[in-house]
Amino acid sequence: MKNLEALSLKVANNQLYILDQQLLPDEEKWLLVESVDHMVQIIKDLKVRGAPLIGIAASLSLALFTNENTTWNEFKALEKKLRESRPTAVNLMNALDRMLEIAERSSMDYQKIVEQAENLFAEDVELCLQMAKAGADLIEDGDNILTHCNTGGLATVGLGTALGVIVQAHQQGKKIHVYVDETRPLLQGGRLTTWELEQHNIPYTLICDNMSGKLMAEGKVQKVFVGADRIAMNGDFANKIGTYNLAVICSHHKVPFYTVAPQTTVDTECASGAGIPVEMRKPEEVRGIYGSFGEIRWAPKNAKVFNPAFDVTPCGLLTGIVLDGKVLSQGELKSGVLKRILNKG
Amino acid sequence: MKNLEALSLKVANNQLYILDQQLLPDEEKWLLVESVDHMVQIIKDLKVRGAPLIGIAASLSLALFTNENTTWNEFKALEKKLRESRPTAVNLMNALDRMLEIAERSSMDYQKIVEQAENLFAEDVELCLQMAKAGADLIEDGDNILTHCNTGGLATVGLGTALGVIVQAHQQGKKIHVYVDETRPLLQGGRLTTWELEQHNIPYTLICDNMSGKLMAEGKVQKVFVGADRIAMNGDFANKIGTYNLAVICSHHKVPFYTVAPQTTVDTECASGAGIPVEMRKPEEVRGIYGSFGEIRWAPKNAKVFNPAFDVTPCGLLTGIVLDGKVLSQGELKSGVLKRILNKG
Repeated sequence: MKNLEALSLKVANNQLYILDQQLLPDEEKWLLVESVDHMVQIIKDLKVRGAPLIGIAASLSLALFTNENTTWNEFKALEKKLRESRPTAVNLMNALDRMLEIAERSSMDYQKIVEQAENLFAEDVELCLQMAKAGADLIEDGDNILTHCNTGGLATVGLGTALGVIVQAHQQGKKIHVYVDETRPLLQGGRLTTWELEQHNIPYTLICDNMSGKLMAEGKVQKVFVGADRIAMNGDFANKIGTYNLAVICSHHKVPFYTVAPQTTVDTECASGAGIPVEMRKPEEVRGIYGSFGEIRWAPKNAKVFNPAFDVTPCGLLTGIVLDGKVLSQGELKSGVLKRILNKG
Repeated sequence: MKNLEALSLKVANNQLYILDQQLLPDEEKWLLVESVDHMVQIIKDLKVRGAPLIGIAASLSLALFTNENTTWNEFKALEKKLRESRPTAVNLMNALDRMLEIAERSSMDYQKIVEQAENLFAEDVELCLQMAKAGADLIEDGDNILTHCNTGGLATVGLGTALGVIVQAHQQGKKIHVYVDETRPLLQGGRLTTWELEQHNIPYTLICDNMSGKLMAEGKVQKVFVGADRIAMNGDFANKIGTYNLAVICSHHKVPFYTVAPQTTVDTECASGAGIPVEMRKPEEVRGIYGSFGEIRWAPKNAKVFNPAFDVTPCGLLTGIVLDGKVLSQGELKSGVLKRILNKG
């Protein structure tokens, strides 16, 4: 396999390395991926995260731990483990579908399998650039932009999705400032988005997730950009828990609210948000904080907890979706533009 | 002074003890208050918290550290330190106003000063009961109630405000379940409200503040009760940061939203929410968690932070205010009922 390099993933001498995102922002430690089982554990532990990045990391590991002697059944067994590591991430499913397809079509031609994984990497870089360019046009000089979770170069192998748009606007010379939702319970905003913004020298202010309304009531937020883990055909989308609250707050204050995602995030089998499964995560994450940066419990030790990984935002709260190369308005989404674009109409 | 006993404050042998709320839920440690300066520090460190409780704790300490030889000027100097310990808490101002008034009117009659502090304690117990009874009538068998911050017997010397209403409904035999907002950044919900609900055997589920919308979209919340730190004459009110987000989310889902507070929380000098000052707190609280239960930073160490202690919810988002003895609807509030009740019209 070619050598590949991104902000949080690299391939060198046919070995896959993952930047352990649980240790950011204070420590930058690269993990050598030792097996497909190891990759599955890395995904489950959120050491690698972000829907596009997970799909590419999984595909690269699948290619690197396949060789000339791997049988179709062995390949399918490895693929199945990866597929089940994160059930909500449609990018993971799509990427692995393409790996399966080439393996089957080429009768397990090892070189073709490697090329397919390389293609997925290159396509993501290009997709990010297309989203960033389309979305950056929406940002004006002087804007204060609020974002949730982490959607940058730690979530993709390119510039990112929502954060890629913001970085692109900054690189175009627009003067912007970013409000970062800390994003409980796993604090991807507080830990990762802040770190990425510092890498790019973009001014930011960190807030708790429950402070966005106060900022908007004071007129301090001009636009909100978030990512998406899965988009239904009617424009409803699933994203990190807290996105729906933010969308409602934006709607109340008439602050434009965009989700940014590649077309691969659209699930053509999913008619509406009601069809998107949402995984429930461990109660420990809400009873305290729980990560490689430390672990503290502040709630009673057997406190019953509600801890969905995602929520679903209906299309009616969206100003638009920024896809690779285009922005679709709520009106276009409601008139069925996704079906027309994806030829499923 | 009489012996007095509440969930988190007691007077025994003329000594004032405060339950250190920073150590809950795992440890129950009582602090002996050694001076007015010590009381000020206890208030600033949030070891005692909750608007009504702060006012009573401050007044008791003022009485206990006054004696037959204290001059009016010395008394006023002590009072001023206490008044400045928490600038947003109107209950603190009101309680201290009454202490000043009796001291002046009685020409520093020590016994009268002590009685005034005892009266403030007894009145709060009675006020809580009147709020609890009025509010509990709004709760139906089977309700799921969401609450924010801590507003129970750890915030008052009686049953509490919003949580007192919930406890009263439970004690009336209504089957209820409570969703508890953890209440970032200081986690009063996760640490304190959960602990109090366990004391009362009321079933609850802990959530992060950004999960309320998902619950409401699924029809899982029937009513929301919160406290208030200050109520303006037009019905706008200040409460713990995150209350305004929650009010907007309720309005969007048409979930009834009540604030519960004694009449002493109404600031007759304050015409609207725009006149309520909001203190900004330390950036460390948002960069991580910061309390006696531990301290972890996950954000970059110099991350710029926005950390208001309170936000202001406009009357238009309220279903009503539960005061001691009565419930005022949004319509009544908008028609100026607070002016009529408080004879300031």
